[in-house]
Amino acid sequence: METTQMTEKLNQVMTSEQLLAHWQGHRALTRRVIEAFPEDKMFDYSIGGMRPFVGLMVELIDLADGGVEGLATGNWKPSEEMAHVTGNVPQSKEELLSKWDEVTEKINLFFPQIAEDRFQEHVLAFGQYEGTVSSTLFYFIDNEIHHRGQAYVYLRSLGINPPFFWER
Amino acid sequence: METTQMTEKLNQVMTSEQLLAHWQGHRALTRRVIEAFPEDKMFDYSIGGMRPFVGLMVELIDLADGGVEGLATGNWKPSEEMAHVTGNVPQSKEELLSKWDEVTEKINLFFPQIAEDRFQEHVLAFGQYEGTVSSTLFYFIDNEIHHRGQAYVYLRSLGINPPFFWER
Repeated sequence: METTQMTEKLNQVMTSEQLLAHWQGHRALTRRVIEAFPEDKMFDYSIGGMRPFVGLMVELIDLADGGVEGLATGNWKPSEEMAHVTGNVPQSKEELLSKWDEVTEKINLFFPQIAEDRFQEHVLAFGQYEGTVSSTLFYFIDNEIHHRGQAYVYLRSLGINPPFFWER
Repeated sequence: METTQMTEKLNQVMTSEQLLAHWQGHRALTRRVIEAFPEDKMFDYSIGGMRPFVGLMVELIDLADGGVEGLATGNWKPSEEMAHVTGNVPQSKEELLSKWDEVTEKINLFFPQIAEDRFQEHVLAFGQYEGTVSSTLFYFIDNEIHHRGQAYVYLRSLGINPPFFWER
């Protein structure tokens, strides 16, 4: 039985442990982008009317924070309580990094509580976004890659070399 | 037997069919970004010394084109023959879109040739990048999201609204 389960796992496109590692690998890279971002440009520097860096990062924190708890427990944090909606955002790079690390721990705690057979289950994330557990997690990850890519342009335009994309 | 296989599939984090759909969904969004990008800014517009839009897109085409064939057949196109290395890039938006569509078809042809039990197999992509079949495919997808996010900033800075990120 154990051997059969192992074989099944090895035949999977991606195991849940690999998905967690994939997510945290991306989050580790985003953390290095936060570290590289000049604190005095975090709150108002913008290109083309886009949100400042802190706004992008707070959205990622909100989605990951409320998202992993919602997927694991079914309890979804109301959008109106989220920092990117209330505007109650970190006031320094230290505070932003500390919030980031808090969510890293929270993901490590809640993600393994998502049962293996639930990844294809349909969910209504934050009470409004239809998908499966997997597609919702990939939305969080892809949204992070997307906004971090934008932060790379902010950094380049400020004359700062971003961390290597392929280092996780 | 068939029922057992179905159940196993339903218990997976992601099936190979879902991974293909995920990739092509992202590629459909990137195609809309190409359509939205002003042709007269494709070849030289830059922020912070970054590559122009066509350079980013050609890299994505090269990776997907040589990548899916390499993963499916084990034959890897030599890097020195790739357009983002040779500089032999499309000279118009129409040509870029046509090359994009060619690769879309190629992915639909080659991807299903990757056997289900090969996704966790170790490969040396393009003869030099270590990973599994899955992690290599995710690198292609993530790299596309990353550069497309950068193209969103280019578009915004040119006063153009990019397509919605969540539409695939």
